[in-house]
Amino acid sequence: MSTTTGQVIRCKAAVAWEAGKPLVIEEVEVAPPQKMEVRIKILFTSLCHTDVYFWEAKGQNPVFPRILGHEAGGVVESVGEGVTDLEPGDHVLPVFTGECKECAHCKSEESNMCDLLRINTDRGVMLHDQKSRFSINGTPIFHFVGTSTFSEYTVVHLGCLAKINPHAPLDKVCVLSCGISTGTNLIVLLDFFDQNKLCFLGLGATLNVAKPNKGSSVAVFGLGAVGLAAAEGARISGASRIIGVDLNTNRFEFAKKFGVTEFVNPKDYKKPVQEVIAEMTNGGVDRSVECTGHVDAMISAFECVHDGWGVAVLVGVPHKDAVFKTGPMNLLNERTLKGTFFGNYKPRSDIPSVVEKYMNKELELEKFITHEVPFSEINKAFDLMLKGEGLRCIIRMDA
Amino acid sequence: MSTTTGQVIRCKAAVAWEAGKPLVIEEVEVAPPQKMEVRIKILFTSLCHTDVYFWEAKGQNPVFPRILGHEAGGVVESVGEGVTDLEPGDHVLPVFTGECKECAHCKSEESNMCDLLRINTDRGVMLHDQKSRFSINGTPIFHFVGTSTFSEYTVVHLGCLAKINPHAPLDKVCVLSCGISTGTNLIVLLDFFDQNKLCFLGLGATLNVAKPNKGSSVAVFGLGAVGLAAAEGARISGASRIIGVDLNTNRFEFAKKFGVTEFVNPKDYKKPVQEVIAEMTNGGVDRSVECTGHVDAMISAFECVHDGWGVAVLVGVPHKDAVFKTGPMNLLNERTLKGTFFGNYKPRSDIPSVVEKYMNKELELEKFITHEVPFSEINKAFDLMLKGEGLRCIIRMDA
Repeated sequence: MSTTTGQVIRCKAAVAWEAGKPLVIEEVEVAPPQKMEVRIKILFTSLCHTDVYFWEAKGQNPVFPRILGHEAGGVVESVGEGVTDLEPGDHVLPVFTGECKECAHCKSEESNMCDLLRINTDRGVMLHDQKSRFSINGTPIFHFVGTSTFSEYTVVHLGCLAKINPHAPLDKVCVLSCGISTGTNLIVLLDFFDQNKLCFLGLGATLNVAKPNKGSSVAVFGLGAVGLAAAEGARISGASRIIGVDLNTNRFEFAKKFGVTEFVNPKDYKKPVQEVIAEMTNGGVDRSVECTGHVDAMISAFECVHDGWGVAVLVGVPHKDAVFKTGPMNLLNERTLKGTFFGNYKPRSDIPSVVEKYMNKELELEKFITHEVPFSEINKAFDLMLKGEGLRCIIRMDA
Repeated sequence: MSTTTGQVIRCKAAVAWEAGKPLVIEEVEVAPPQKMEVRIKILFTSLCHTDVYFWEAKGQNPVFPRILGHEAGGVVESVGEGVTDLEPGDHVLPVFTGECKECAHCKSEESNMCDLLRINTDRGVMLHDQKSRFSINGTPIFHFVGTSTFSEYTVVHLGCLAKINPHAPLDKVCVLSCGISTGTNLIVLLDFFDQNKLCFLGLGATLNVAKPNKGSSVAVFGLGAVGLAAAEGARISGASRIIGVDLNTNRFEFAKKFGVTEFVNPKDYKKPVQEVIAEMTNGGVDRSVECTGHVDAMISAFECVHDGWGVAVLVGVPHKDAVFKTGPMNLLNERTLKGTFFGNYKPRSDIPSVVEKYMNKELELEKFITHEVPFSEINKAFDLMLKGEGLRCIIRMDA
């Protein structure tokens, strides 16, 4: 048992005191974990557009002061009452959405949208007692999506922790706790959203939902981080044609690393992009994955799949007032339209096997990691993201 | 070999000389089958709304004189060049859509929308030579959807014939050649359609596409013949709650025979029916099958399925100008939307096993058959359908 078990831990955390202002490294107090909670030492975290989005807090309920961060890897320091699945020393990835293993969703083989622990971006406290575990001189500092990984120590509900292979390098697999693995959409509960701030990626969207067959064709709409992970999923599945669709032609060269074989810029054509793709592929692609969140791209992604067997998967989160419109005959001709949340992975049950995909070299994570900064310079990671530079910036907590 | 092989056969057929006028039983000449064609003796046929629809020929290209009929059972009389899969004496069900076994759709495990033999309601001739096999005194009489079963003998492309168990009673299983088995939508190519004229039913839509688990809940929109077959599919699947939705409360009593356990009439509520169903089912049904073709019902059917795992299947064929609209978040919350054509059955490969479902008493066909008339009184079957009486009227060719 650690000497800190049951004690308040004083450690460094990057606190967002107000919207859009640089984070401040502060000494915070982290209370011991309560019932069904786990306190973990964060070793690596990374910055995701969603953190930036809630830090900017435009058009949302501002929840400050707050400790952001949700993509990370750490080690269990101590566990609260009732926790039997984890023990000090276990390597874990915190996840912004959970798996209670008790609700109808967790019991269903088909869903991962846990009733108890489904993401809630407005809640800044722990479920057990509706209180924060963080404070500075008695002032509570709010949690963020149940993870708050921009702190040397954090407290997380057991249901939001995936126990992983202790041999997996946490400075790489930390990115699997959210974006790369999941093709997800944390921002589901928002009143407003700006697609440029979206982060989560598309591996699970392709592997678990689109499920392309070996040798098949896949169109990926949007070649940001989400789309590149979707393309990576298509590459792993053995798709022979991966058609990247983006308004920015410069993205194609980089996208080749992720398996993209062809590129279409809708601006280069007078006809709708779904018609361009249908002509390129003798009637349509086998699968498509939409990662921009623009409703027109969603419609194109659906209408560009082949009749008879085509499946379109929606990953990008649309504006709340967006309306998806299509002619019903597009459906009756045996096309399928699906959405996904967190790549349809059940966080505790499935994320460990995604880590194994990295360990056995099936999944390449290094190419997603473009920058690294010490924790003391966390604001540099925000600057990089605001400038649109790179994909993932790893933040080392010990530096 | 039959003595008629290679000869023109003179026999009785019910000819539609012009739109909306009673059929006339005429002596027609039926030419021998050509390359890849089969001539069959029809023993039983049944009337389907689609026959009535093309007989009325409102808002379509009229194709007359024509021999209608597409739901039937018969016996092979002779085969044309290249036909090796069938021989005289085989029991067959003709199907309005085919399976060439050569095209991309036939080779795909996921599609049944054969490129060569997909339904074409405008074509009144055979594919091989673009001519009709029917004539009266040298005047060609046009075919209908490749089947033209309102004739004692007809010529059908090999790819549009399912070879079935010779012990299966053709006066029952004839209804499987279209409606009951398939949950389909022959009228896909129409410029205009009136949903009341639609016939095809929903068994395959439920069994092959919605695939409800044992003990699950299924909502069926529209309790006409399509919806009742969809309900029958849900019953066979072991669904524990089958919620029938219809604007006509009188239909509920009859629907109970097909497994419907609860009834909702949207007119009884001020709130949208999807909300009513969500309240009845703790968040939504596991599966829904839409059989009315009204786009508002399609939207309700989609939005009434549970998030996380719900699947909505569209069977009813909409107006060509209809637009399916929904908030994309309904998709992103892990709902799936699919359409189906011919219940996703491959006609030659799969229909024989549907006949077996009847033979082993899993599928109950008798309750779909409410009337029977001799061929000489075929116009009575039209009268019954126009009055909306009953579900299926069997027409005995030998009487």
